[in-house]
Amino acid sequence: MGKGGKSHEETKSGEDENMAAWLVGLNTLKIQPFKLPPLGPHDARVRMKAVGICGSDVHYLKTMRCADFVVKEPMVIGHECAGIIEEVGSEVKNLVPGDRVALEPGISCWRCDLCKDGRYNLCPEMKFLPLHQFMVLLPIRLTFKLHFSIGSSLLFGAYFATKIAYSKGFQDTIVIVVHPADLCFKLPDNVSLEEGAMCEPLSVGVHACRRANIGPETNVLVMGAGPIGLVTMMAARAFGAPRIVIVDVDDNRLSVAKNLGADGIVKVSTDMQDVAEEVERICKAMGGGVDVCLVGMGHHEMTVPLLQLLQGTYFDDAVKILFYGALAICFEHQSWVDDVIGIFRYRNTWPLCIEFLRSGKIDVKPLITQKEVEEAFETSAGGGSAIKVMFNL
Amino acid sequence: MGKGGKSHEETKSGEDENMAAWLVGLNTLKIQPFKLPPLGPHDARVRMKAVGICGSDVHYLKTMRCADFVVKEPMVIGHECAGIIEEVGSEVKNLVPGDRVALEPGISCWRCDLCKDGRYNLCPEMKFLPLHQFMVLLPIRLTFKLHFSIGSSLLFGAYFATKIAYSKGFQDTIVIVVHPADLCFKLPDNVSLEEGAMCEPLSVGVHACRRANIGPETNVLVMGAGPIGLVTMMAARAFGAPRIVIVDVDDNRLSVAKNLGADGIVKVSTDMQDVAEEVERICKAMGGGVDVCLVGMGHHEMTVPLLQLLQGTYFDDAVKILFYGALAICFEHQSWVDDVIGIFRYRNTWPLCIEFLRSGKIDVKPLITQKEVEEAFETSAGGGSAIKVMFNL
Amino acid sequence: MGKGGKSHEETKSGEDENMAAWLVGLNTLKIQPFKLPPLGPHDARVRMKAVGICGSDVHYLKTMRCADFVVKEPMVIGHECAGIIEEVGSEVKNLVPGDRVALEPGISCWRCDLCKDGRYNLCPEMKFLPLHQFMVLLPIRLTFKLHFSIGSSLLFGAYFATKIAYSKGFQDTIVIVVHPADLCFKLPDNVSLEEGAMCEPLSVGVHACRRANIGPETNVLVMGAGPIGLVTMMAARAFGAPRIVIVDVDDNRLSVAKNLGADGIVKVSTDMQDVAEEVERICKAMGGGVDVCLVGMGHHEMTVPLLQLLQGTYFDDAVKILFYGALAICFEHQSWVDDVIGIFRYRNTWPLCIEFLRSGKIDVKPLITQKEVEEAFETSAGGGSAIKVMFNL
Amino acid sequence: MGKGGKSHEETKSGEDENMAAWLVGLNTLKIQPFKLPPLGPHDARVRMKAVGICGSDVHYLKTMRCADFVVKEPMVIGHECAGIIEEVGSEVKNLVPGDRVALEPGISCWRCDLCKDGRYNLCPEMKFLPLHQFMVLLPIRLTFKLHFSIGSSLLFGAYFATKIAYSKGFQDTIVIVVHPADLCFKLPDNVSLEEGAMCEPLSVGVHACRRANIGPETNVLVMGAGPIGLVTMMAARAFGAPRIVIVDVDDNRLSVAKNLGADGIVKVSTDMQDVAEEVERICKAMGGGVDVCLVGMGHHEMTVPLLQLLQGTYFDDAVKILFYGALAICFEHQSWVDDVIGIFRYRNTWPLCIEFLRSGKIDVKPLITQKEVEEAFETSAGGGSAIKVMFNL
Repeated sequence: MGKGGKSHEETKSGEDENMAAWLVGLNTLKIQPFKLPPLGPHDARVRMKAVGICGSDVHYLKTMRCADFVVKEPMVIGHECAGIIEEVGSEVKNLVPGDRVALEPGISCWRCDLCKDGRYNLCPEMKFLPLHQFMVLLPIRLTFKLHFSIGSSLLFGAYFATKIAYSKGFQDTIVIVVHPADLCFKLPDNVSLEEGAMCEPLSVGVHACRRANIGPETNVLVMGAGPIGLVTMMAARAFGAPRIVIVDVDDNRLSVAKNLGADGIVKVSTDMQDVAEEVERICKAMGGGVDVCLVGMGHHEMTVPLLQLLQGTYFDDAVKILFYGALAICFEHQSWVDDVIGIFRYRNTWPLCIEFLRSGKIDVKPLITQKEVEEAFETSAGGGSAIKVMFNL
Repeated sequence: MGKGGKSHEETKSGEDENMAAWLVGLNTLKIQPFKLPPLGPHDARVRMKAVGICGSDVHYLKTMRCADFVVKEPMVIGHECAGIIEEVGSEVKNLVPGDRVALEPGISCWRCDLCKDGRYNLCPEMKFLPLHQFMVLLPIRLTFKLHFSIGSSLLFGAYFATKIAYSKGFQDTIVIVVHPADLCFKLPDNVSLEEGAMCEPLSVGVHACRRANIGPETNVLVMGAGPIGLVTMMAARAFGAPRIVIVDVDDNRLSVAKNLGADGIVKVSTDMQDVAEEVERICKAMGGGVDVCLVGMGHHEMTVPLLQLLQGTYFDDAVKILFYGALAICFEHQSWVDDVIGIFRYRNTWPLCIEFLRSGKIDVKPLITQKEVEEAFETSAGGGSAIKVMFNL
Repeated sequence: MGKGGKSHEETKSGEDENMAAWLVGLNTLKIQPFKLPPLGPHDARVRMKAVGICGSDVHYLKTMRCADFVVKEPMVIGHECAGIIEEVGSEVKNLVPGDRVALEPGISCWRCDLCKDGRYNLCPEMKFLPLHQFMVLLPIRLTFKLHFSIGSSLLFGAYFATKIAYSKGFQDTIVIVVHPADLCFKLPDNVSLEEGAMCEPLSVGVHACRRANIGPETNVLVMGAGPIGLVTMMAARAFGAPRIVIVDVDDNRLSVAKNLGADGIVKVSTDMQDVAEEVERICKAMGGGVDVCLVGMGHHEMTVPLLQLLQGTYFDDAVKILFYGALAICFEHQSWVDDVIGIFRYRNTWPLCIEFLRSGKIDVKPLITQKEVEEAFETSAGGGSAIKVMFNL
Repeated sequence: MGKGGKSHEETKSGEDENMAAWLVGLNTLKIQPFKLPPLGPHDARVRMKAVGICGSDVHYLKTMRCADFVVKEPMVIGHECAGIIEEVGSEVKNLVPGDRVALEPGISCWRCDLCKDGRYNLCPEMKFLPLHQFMVLLPIRLTFKLHFSIGSSLLFGAYFATKIAYSKGFQDTIVIVVHPADLCFKLPDNVSLEEGAMCEPLSVGVHACRRANIGPETNVLVMGAGPIGLVTMMAARAFGAPRIVIVDVDDNRLSVAKNLGADGIVKVSTDMQDVAEEVERICKAMGGGVDVCLVGMGHHEMTVPLLQLLQGTYFDDAVKILFYGALAICFEHQSWVDDVIGIFRYRNTWPLCIEFLRSGKIDVKPLITQKEVEEAFETSAGGGSAIKVMFNL
């Protein structure tokens, strides 16, 4: 059967008992079964091995919505994942059981104008792994590895999710998903499953860099040194950006950014009165001008006035778009904004992310630290230096 | 049941008797049954009402190949068509039985890199209407309307195909196809089915204009006044091209081009020795320079030296690409070529073609003349003025 | 000497007496001499015949600033103009005395990175007609023809400027400027000097349409039916936009817009409470979605909440950019903004504007009505139907 | 006066004695004076310190033409150079005497449509360093450093030029040029003048990479491992190309390419019969497909059939364009060419080249070996390993 292989019969019989933690209400996860869809000729059956929880997951958990998306039916959170191929459909040529793969979670309709135009990331019918119904689902059992941002509001949500998984004793359950094979990307030998799962957040940064056309002539300012800000910084470097400055309110995050290769870091406050002086420091850190400003996570109160002064104009609350991903603001000229480019999800990013990981142009390992759950939370609460925590359950 | 409606049962029982003329060898069509695929949730069942035969069809008929594509299994030719919706799948929202639709014939895989990148026209797994197997099929019975170029080598093939349809008595058979509903485009009331079928060749011109980024600042030279050259000229006009000159070896075609709105026409010969003088006349007809040269059909002997002199460079046999469609050569500078852009099929063109037909920005009616078969061929043989002939059988 | 010709000696002797109305303080114009620069080998000497005053001129007059530009030295307002060639420098090949020309007023440095990159409109060293010193100058004597917006705050400024010209008796003085010949564009016989002067505001619309890549597939929403909004609408039509809806607070302007070819008009208020209903009406008028929203003049209070609802996001005070020209907001997707593209001045627009006027694709004549000064102001004050007024002095 | 400074008076008096070797006929250089133009307010006076001779120079020397450009008046060859600022014009802000600078040699008109459109490299009025008349001039005395390709037909020309300089005893003459200051780019401390002079050939590669939009997703095939091929390969790497294969007929060149970082090298012959097998080896070396094929120098006999097979099409003699620089052929699809992009000279490349040299992303030092003249030629004649030779005279 090969490494990780499994007979068709075994898998099938296992379907009925497949359990997942569904989001059914505010902060309410309920463990209930879900039925795997049949394995189509172009599908793959994947045993999940690594998964993360991103900020949007926690937003769903805590508010039953994320930006414009409102949870109306029970759903399961989580979409950063990697696993091992169990079985492939009859028409799948590029994968065999045992292959280690990273999963692109979104399944677009390929019938709408946006899909046909190559912008499938904007597909209004996008469905997420693993059900082919209009519902986002990912078994909470997969959260035996998760990462989150220390010191942020995400902490509670991640803790909550983990606690449930723990208390229910699902930590050693095998989780299987069925997914289109063309969205399962084989990992090279030197890329771990945990790194593979990081292709999802990294894709946001890669998509932003592509949209902003970052290259060896682009000096980049990154607003926010959270997980998305950091992977965006890494992607910008891999695209050849010669100078990258990153801005945040948190010393610890900035220190991590510096260690990860930022050419300059600028600490700012959330106090409006400091803005003029902060802009001056940012300009000084950049040196010869900003070509692209990539706005990831950030405090609204801080981001807007900074942008305002940098641009000589004012985009109030523009950061709302950030819930979806990142906002790339291209400064074509010093004193005003020429282009503002929205970023939503990503498209065709997995092969490039994997190549970056394989070649070492991007190293996401420093973003992942694996610890026992309780210890990790204590570390976090104590304001330790770990920027992301992954649990071994 | 509405106009043209039909019960599911009737259609189903009719399937087995569905007959088609299959291309099985050089100049050999054989009438044999084909089975309709099942109607999927996103499919539509369409009763064909108008169909044309393009140059590629005739190439298949006469040589069992067209450019790189070689016929290895029996197939049926034809892909310019329009019809009436008979039935739609459970998930189809935008169509109802009785709707008049133009059909985009190619069905791409949506799993390969090219499809995902929005260039589905280049999909190596492209399948053509109406079978979802890897085979091109269109019932020859549909050729009760066909158009072709008078005086061209296409004549014999079209005649041959029509004669078979005639002799077999299929002219009044109802032909049904099953096709993805998102590739069936509803026609407005003021656009006929014959015009709808013309969306296919028109799409080649529209795709060329998009690829060449034609607009109100683009002076256009069109090489070849055949069907593709003419629709490309019309598309260029609809995209705003202020000056369009068209070149051909045939006085009759040039006269048609002039009537269809060419700002200038230039007659050339196939004699290499005339090239210098011809280039001079082309430059004079263009006036202020060529921005884009759209190369459709044409005699190799003529096209290459013309391009050579216009560019100051030499692309021998580049016209081979023309079998696929049209080649857009962008002159960014007078004395050499800056960009050569290949065109293959089309993508996302039906809505724009239909809008052009609806608004009257493009009028394809002069390209279609309907005559009785025998009379038509006599007209053609006599070198009459009809550029395209459609038959009422 | 030909029509309008003049000997070098005559012109030279006339220089010293050349007078201009200089803006020296708030609402303070002072008539004082200015010296023509020498005629360089690539320059042309032009006798001005038609000139307009745009909103930015009036802003300078009333506030000594326009957006970020602050008047620190005496300057002269006005930059929409056309005239007749008097003399050309030794290296000028494309113009002869007597040629009627429209003038592109801005002279960029061609040494900075922006100029070299083809974005000369953003040149920080841009100097304006006619002095080659760092100062904007245009003789107020040229205002024997001017146009402005009725019912707007521009009225007073235009009136003020005209009154001065009048009272000083400069209405029949000949005004000469020296300008780079490559910025003097010959007018065809069927384009009047008044229409030629309109190339300047029209250029804003043309540049916006180019930046927004408007073509036959772009449904356009224009915010504001002032002069810039109207020429932008006209330009969008000339670029092939199939559907254009225009929004304003003023019935008279909307009526003009309708007469000039808007497919739909929507009256809005400046009351925030009406926004939701107004958005609904705008969406209804557009029909199938907005592809590009071109924001010209407009009340801040109105524009921002409209954009906010249309986009599902919020760009407070973004209209500040409008002082420079127009802001093109591309909606790539229904529910959020994908690109925001700033527009500042224009580049390489005169040839296309002139071609649009020559071919009749754009007719600016309805934007210009010429009346005696006093009568005109009475008409304006009375709320008459003239959208722009030009004076014969 | 600073290092290298010189009083205005001294320089002026030195003008008359300034001598240059003019190309006056086939293989005929004549030493005669040239007069420095006056130092304009935006000019710089530069003492030349390093200069190379490129293939086009030698073409001029040997044939009195290069591609379409025919020498009709005496001219002086050479345009790859660097030097030290002696004096700057009154308006020059960014340079001071003593600054070490690399010179962009071409001076465009900034009045034609191409210049205004940002494509100044295509300017038909382009004049080359250092005269502002329509004549290409560079004092042969500058050839105290020159580089050329060993084993190529360029050898004789370079030798010839050097011999003349030698025999005339100009090797220690100080050569001064007057050049626009905005075309003099200051070198960082860690970039030598010899490296600075290499910005010119490197610019061809950088411009090609920009035009081909090379980035971290572009697998590149470089045809020809001559000087241009090598700098193009280096530029492609600096733009992030993950895999670069280079093809040539010469083992020595390929060995150099390998040492300079090529991921794969393929030796080909000029024998048409080997083409099929060679294409197979190229495809194997590339691995996962060619995204961009950059065609630099190369034997026509070899290049065309290779391209033909790779593309499935045929561009005879397309390499003619290579005399101007490099031809970028973008394969968007395996089996045919989608875009062919011509390259002519370069634009806005010096800052990026200098940044690449400063940061170490590109190291051109291995391309330059400095030897005494006679020894160098012996080395060359002996088929040694030096790919480029620079002389200390």
